[in-house]
Parts: sequence; C-alpha cells; structure tokens
Amino acid sequence: MKPAHISYHPGTLRLLDQTQLPAATIFLDLQTLFEVAAAIKELRVRGAPAIGITAAYAMAIEAHELARQSLDAATFLQRVQRAGTALIAVRPTAVNLAWAVRRQEKTAQEMLAAGSTPAEVATALDEVAQVIHREDIESCRRIGDHGASFLKNLRGGQPQRVLTHCNTGDLATGGYGTALGVIRSLWASGHLQQVFVGETRPVLQGARLTAWELVQDDIPHTLITDSMAAHFMQRGEIDAVIVGADRIARNGDVANKIGTYALAVAAGAHGIPFLVAAPLSTFDPDLARGDEIVIEQRGPDEVTSFAGARSSPPETQAANPSFDVTPAQRIRAIVTERGAIEAPFGPAIERLLTSAPAAAKART
Amino acid sequence: MKPAHISYHPGTLRLLDQTQLPAATIFLDLQTLFEVAAAIKELRVRGAPAIGITAAYAMAIEAHELARQSLDAATFLQRVQRAGTALIAVRPTAVNLAWAVRRQEKTAQEMLAAGSTPAEVATALDEVAQVIHREDIESCRRIGDHGASFLKNLRGGQPQRVLTHCNTGDLATGGYGTALGVIRSLWASGHLQQVFVGETRPVLQGARLTAWELVQDDIPHTLITDSMAAHFMQRGEIDAVIVGADRIARNGDVANKIGTYALAVAAGAHGIPFLVAAPLSTFDPDLARGDEIVIEQRGPDEVTSFAGARSSPPETQAANPSFDVTPAQRIRAIVTERGAIEAPFGPAIERLLTSAPAAAKART
Repeated sequence: MKPAHISYHPGTLRLLDQTQLPAATIFLDLQTLFEVAAAIKELRVRGAPAIGITAAYAMAIEAHELARQSLDAATFLQRVQRAGTALIAVRPTAVNLAWAVRRQEKTAQEMLAAGSTPAEVATALDEVAQVIHREDIESCRRIGDHGASFLKNLRGGQPQRVLTHCNTGDLATGGYGTALGVIRSLWASGHLQQVFVGETRPVLQGARLTAWELVQDDIPHTLITDSMAAHFMQRGEIDAVIVGADRIARNGDVANKIGTYALAVAAGAHGIPFLVAAPLSTFDPDLARGDEIVIEQRGPDEVTSFAGARSSPPETQAANPSFDVTPAQRIRAIVTERGAIEAPFGPAIERLLTSAPAAAKART
Repeated sequence: MKPAHISYHPGTLRLLDQTQLPAATIFLDLQTLFEVAAAIKELRVRGAPAIGITAAYAMAIEAHELARQSLDAATFLQRVQRAGTALIAVRPTAVNLAWAVRRQEKTAQEMLAAGSTPAEVATALDEVAQVIHREDIESCRRIGDHGASFLKNLRGGQPQRVLTHCNTGDLATGGYGTALGVIRSLWASGHLQQVFVGETRPVLQGARLTAWELVQDDIPHTLITDSMAAHFMQRGEIDAVIVGADRIARNGDVANKIGTYALAVAAGAHGIPFLVAAPLSTFDPDLARGDEIVIEQRGPDEVTSFAGARSSPPETQAANPSFDVTPAQRIRAIVTERGAIEAPFGPAIERLLTSAPAAAKART
C-alpha cells in the first residue's frame, strides 16, 4: 500500500511535496505553523479538502508550541486565533481551510472556557485534526458512490468518457478524491470508458497530479490542453464533465480552479452534463452568491514560465487569477457525501446545511 | 528597422527561427527543399500565410536545383510537382501552403508548355515567390485597416480591450499580420486600450511570439492562460475576440489553431463579437464545409512536456490536434483585404472568390 500523502504524529506533519510530482516522490516533515503555511502557499499541498486537513494539523502543531510557553488561557486563545487568521489568509478562496481552522478555534475556546489547560487543548486539537482527516476520506468514498450512481443513471449504464480538470483525487483530499473519487467509483463499477484530463494551466495539476493518480490506478486516460476540451465536445467524444470545488455559495454558484468556468460554458453549448463533486465542508453558509467570493490572485511567474523556463518576454505582464466562478445555472448536479442535489440548488443546499449530522453542525 | 523574418536571395531562404523566440534571435539559411520542409514541420516558421510564402520560396529553390540536372521538360515538371506534393503533406491544414505551391506549379507548367527552359522557370519561380510575399504584406495592411474600421464602428469609437489567440502577426505572415494587423491598426488609430494574449498551448505561440511582437511595438498587453479567457469575458473585461485562420470553407467555417473554437463558444455565451482576419488565399474554394477539413494531429510530446521538461508521467498518453473548426454561425465577421464580410457568409465568399483581382484568380 502506498503511504498517505498527509500523515501526522503529534508535533510533526508529513506531507508529500506535490510540486515535485510526477518526477519525484519527496516527503516533507513540518514542525511549525510557519513551515506548514509556506507549504500551503507554495502549493506543496493543494486541493480544498487537503488544505483544510493540513490547516487543522497546523493548528494542533501551533497549540503544542504555545502550550510550552506557559501562557494564561486568554493569551493562549488569542495566539491560537491569530495563527488561524494567518493561515486563512494564505489561500483565501478555498473555504475548507477556514472551516477547519474555525473548528479548531472553537474546540480550543470551549475547552478553555470549561477549565482545560493549554496542553490539554493541544492534545484535543491533534484528535480533532485526525477526525477531520478521517471524516474527509469517508466523505470522499460516499461522494464517489453517489456521483457514479448519478452518472450511470444519466447514461443508462453505457460506459462513459468523462472530462475532469485540475486534481481532485487522493492528493487533493484526505484520500480517494471528490470528482476523481466519482471517476474511481465509475471505473470500479465498469461504467467508465476513459478520462480526458485537462492539463490545468498554469500549475498543471491535471498533467502532473491527476495523470499520476490515474497511472497508479491503471485507469485509461488522455491528457489534453485545456483549450482542446471544447473541440472534443464538438466531436462528440465527451459524455460528462466533473470537477471539484473550492467554495460553494448558498445559491449553488461554485468557485473552482481557473478554467472550470470555460468548461461549464462549453459543456452547456454541447448539451453535456456538468457536475461538481465536493464535501459539505466546501459550502459556505455565509455566502449568498458566487460573485462575493474573493478570487486569489497569484504571482505572474506561473503564467510567464514553466519549470523555471520563461516562455514570454521579460517585459510582458500576466494575469493569474487562481479560480473562477461557475454560476449555478450551468451546473447539472452537485454531488456531496449525502447525495447529488440538482436545481433549484438554494433550497437543496439549505436542507443539507441545516440537517447534516457532522460537518455542517460543527461549524455553527 | 528590424530585419524581415523571411528574406530570399535566389537559392537561399533566410528564416528567423521562431522556436527560439523570445529567448534568442537566430536566423537560418536554408538551401534545399528538404531543409525548408523540415523548418516548416518543426514550426521554425509557422502561421498560414508565412508558410505559404516559405513554400513558394522552397519551390523556387527546388526548381533551381532541378534545373542544374539537365532534365527534359516533362521530367522537370514531374519533379517540381513531386516536390509540391511533399511540401503540402508537411502541414495539411493550412490552405495557404497548398495555394502557394499550386501557384508555383501552374507557373512552371505554363512556361514549360510555352517552351521555356527549366532554368528560365526557376528564375520565374523566384519572382512569383517574391510577388506572393509582397502581395501578402499588402493584404495584411488592408486587412488591418478594414478590421480596425469594423471594430471601431461596433463600439462607437470607444477604446477596446481585444483578446487574440496564437500568433497572427509579422511572424505569421509576410509582415504586419492578419488579426494582429487589425490590432496594430486599431492601436495606431488610438482605439485600442489593451490586448489580452492567450498563451496558446501547447506550442505557446501567444506567449512566445505575439507577446514578443507587442513588446517590440510597445502595445499594452496582458498574457493569460487559454483557460482564463472565459473568466475575463464573464467579468466584462473583453470587448472583442479576433483570431486568424488556417483554412476557410465556402460556407464560412474556419479552421484555426486549437483553442479558437473554445474562445468562439465563450464569446458567444457573453455576447462578445468574434472576428476572423485572413487573406483571400486562406479560403478554400474546394471545401464546402468545415467538417471536411483535415485536422493535423501532431505528436504527444508538445502536450506532455514544456521547454524540454516533461510535465506528466511517462505512461500518460496525450492527444494533440493542432487545429479546430469554428462554425460560421459563431463568427461575427471575416475580415479580408477586400473588406469585412458578415453572415450569410456563403454568398459573400462566393462573390469574393469570383471577383478578386489577384490572389483568387491566380488559383484557378
């Protein structure tokens, strides 16, 4: 069995460095909040659920560090919260990061109010982080099965050719994946013919990470540039598109990796179902609509170069929005661990967020 | 003044090696058909009009070589035609290449029938190639002015933000450019605010070549990945899209660089005018509809790697169609050296091809 890409022993977080894939498999041992924040910033770990899990562990690491400093309870809590605020600012678009940080802050606050010591809180944060991690893997399995059922019903059991974008697999989650989890479940049930993998410029998560996962699982796939997707749709070679999400508004608008919106537009023009797969922790109950989502703007170097080689003249400026927003009306279904929801998304999301047993309740 | 990227002294064709841009400015001196065909295949020169001009010079070079071999007229013509067939096969999608080759073959055939010697034919092919080259520059200037007028009228004189794809400038033509010629004319008239340059994976002609030309001309521009175009359209930051063409069918369907169709679909979804700029030599009178166009499939390495660095696992397969086809109904106007035509394109193209004074007549 392959080693988990995120693993934890109290005080040390071990991460597979995704920036080195597929050329090299290198694990990083991180022991401070600063190191973990840098790893998130540099995309050594990425994917909305995975950075949520990573942030939960980072909060535990920081709590242990603070517990060694003999702080009073109020100062300890303030420092924990300051760490959380700093972590959230590292990547503002994915809500799972904020969700995990808030869950840890709430645990700390409640325990301190009940008289626990900082050391006891730190140990509890270890446990909560591990619960978040296990819950995510379990959610992905359920998303995979619900999504595969939905796609099978759409196509009457015919083997399908599915396009995906970015990486939403093992590496983007606690394990198994969201959109790639659906693809895995579809393959396991014999209903997948092949996967089209969009390379996902500028950081090439599709080419580097999704292709790497599909090779490991022996799932047939074809890598394409993002600009080829509409062409293959026009030729009738794509039956469905499924992507992940970094943040979902209460009306069903979805922020996801840049390029997602272009795929949704092209799918719509060709009558191809466009699906989103994400755990409940990706829904943002504080957000009414997608146009309120803060889009992370990254540095231009990711666009003007590749693997250290500059592709454009030094004078050329580049834009690098890391995400885009797909309006709910372009989405056929959103697949969660509690099943697939369809339009009208607003009421369906409202029901999910008020009735969910674990994740959604923990957020309030 | 900068040196021309294509120049010719009888027997030697000097080409700027576009695969080395923007890092290095290297000229190649080519003296055989084989060398020129290799340069076309390897994209050292690319762009439909530019490869047409290059092929015309290659035919002249080959005619000089054959004229030195004391062949009889019939054998000489047969060898000239064999050279033409081989050249056309190098890049099957762009019609300008076939058009230029056929024009040279016709010159050879007519002169030999009238009693000229192979040496006289070779000298004539030098001249015809230079005429094709000069005509193309003149056509580009006219396309630029017609296109700029059309865009100005569309927007009531407001400065515009224009998205383009691939490279359609100096480097893609005899000089000035088609779609980029329109952008140059728009800039010269004070009606251009800025250019969005799609990087144009997999070969990055936008990032490497269009950005390089815009830097040289001091035209404000922003480089984006192809997948970002729809996002900026959604945000209202793009007023028009203008691209070139490699082959245009009699009904107005356009084959152009892969990724063009996705831009046309996205422009349509946002009510943004989508324009094509191309000389008459790009129209294929033998082609009724775009779905009959042969799409060149290139090797997978362009998709699986970048600047020599492999981005995906070695086991991963990739597709690499070099062009796609945009149906006429997604095109607002096609700008030629004789003005902009609009739907219904069929009758307008028929009129252009039957009444054109120079290029179209020479093809019959």
